Amino acid sequence: MAPTRRNSEKRPPAARRAGRPASVHEGWIWGRHAVLAALANPRRKALSLHVTRNAAADLSDTDRAKAEIAQPGAISALLPDSAVHQGFALKAAALDPEPLAAVQDATHGLLVVLDQITDPQNVGAVFRSAAAFGARAVILQDRKAPPLFGAVCKAAVGCVETVPHVKVTNIADTISGLREAGRYAIGLAGEAEAALDDEIAANAGPGLVIVLGAEGAGLRPRVADHCDALARIPMGPKAESLNVAAAAAIALYEASRFDKRINPRSDAR
Amino acid sequence: MAPTRRNSEKRPPAARRAGRPASVHEGWIWGRHAVLAALANPRRKALSLHVTRNAAADLSDTDRAKAEIAQPGAISALLPDSAVHQGFALKAAALDPEPLAAVQDATHGLLVVLDQITDPQNVGAVFRSAAAFGARAVILQDRKAPPLFGAVCKAAVGCVETVPHVKVTNIADTISGLREAGRYAIGLAGEAEAALDDEIAANAGPGLVIVLGAEGAGLRPRVADHCDALARIPMGPKAESLNVAAAAAIALYEASRFDKRINPRSDAR
Repeated sequence: MAPTRRNSEKRPPAARRAGRPASVHEGWIWGRHAVLAALANPRRKALSLHVTRNAAADLSDTDRAKAEIAQPGAISALLPDSAVHQGFALKAAALDPEPLAAVQDATHGLLVVLDQITDPQNVGAVFRSAAAFGARAVILQDRKAPPLFGAVCKAAVGCVETVPHVKVTNIADTISGLREAGRYAIGLAGEAEAALDDEIAANAGPGLVIVLGAEGAGLRPRVADHCDALARIPMGPKAESLNVAAAAAIALYEASRFDKRINPRSDAR
Repeated sequence: MAPTRRNSEKRPPAARRAGRPASVHEGWIWGRHAVLAALANPRRKALSLHVTRNAAADLSDTDRAKAEIAQPGAISALLPDSAVHQGFALKAAALDPEPLAAVQDATHGLLVVLDQITDPQNVGAVFRSAAAFGARAVILQDRKAPPLFGAVCKAAVGCVETVPHVKVTNIADTISGLREAGRYAIGLAGEAEAALDDEIAANAGPGLVIVLGAEGAGLRPRVADHCDALARIPMGPKAESLNVAAAAAIALYEASRFDKRINPRSDAR
């Protein structure tokens, strides 16, 4: 686990010294689902817990004993202006990412790769859909992803705790490595010729990798080049584009048709 | 169009006198896509336009002549704290809803019905997916929907302007009326036995109605009772639920498979 001011006497790491936000190592989680899921996650180190009297009733005895009871306004004062906390705020250490080697095996289940998606709401929503459709992990770029706290955790309603994540330095190289491990990477691109359902049907199975780029910019060229195939979600004439979290939900749903855990009639390999 | 303080000398309507928020009749739209789409919509009455010098370059000559050029901070001061305006803020009158009678014909294309979905981000995202997949209109309950301004328009990236909406008093009665007009209404419900893809495949066509309930509460019992069928999106064992905007995207995508405008290979009726 990354050292934090609270749980380590060690010299801060280079990233901290260089002025990166502390939120990479510790940060706030708010909202009922997000906080209860974080407290239930044995891999998540809680640093301080602030709840309203009403919210305290939802905590385990152990957590309630550690919690500071506060008025809603006092909890709001700890958090960003826009935080809708529902009476729950938790300061916690960052979750340890899983090593790439732990998830790359092509029999281990679908992976989602996010290429420079920075909007916390979208990243959180992807975690939620990844949980719904049984993805093995979400892969993020180390320097271009929002910290997995706050708005990410709120939108993920607890799924940041249950879906493992992997942090990598270079997305294109990571995709190459996954393909060498026998996986098949489909990049979503509005301008692609192939339709997503055809691409998934032809390559369905636990070795699939779905690669999503930022809204507007889309996949970076080098990332697109490293995928096995690019595919589009067919849309009507009035459409400009889908929200990236909506596109992720559709891609994960489409892949889940071939997952026997979700669709027992499927003829997945 | 509803009268506003600016464009009418008439006595304010009963709703205004009774203390309902002015935002029902006029409100702020912000963000580049949302504002440019509103300005391009001949049915949208602009009241005042505030843009940064940079943003002004994106306006037509006509709009630029009417715009007030302001510093980013001065624009922020006009808007709610959390508004990410990208240099664009427009005060505008509410869009007139379409009458239900104009959209109910079963040959006119898919309808989306929102049963008490109040989160602006989710409502906006539904408009965006409805545009992407060629829905005819979004139907909302008059008193239980957020005003179609602000965060709704931002999340919809302009699709509130392009996808018609209908406001109704009673959702269950509306569904009955649509069924009498020959439509087939599928309500999304996590506990349903039927799978969504089977239900859609068996009833595909421009007469489909997709009914979505609020997260957590789901469809109200009377609304569920008035649907032809309830269907679920199959999910994995770790899943609790999907975000309602993700569920809407998946349902609209699934229905679009049978739409020849979107999927030319389809055998839709």
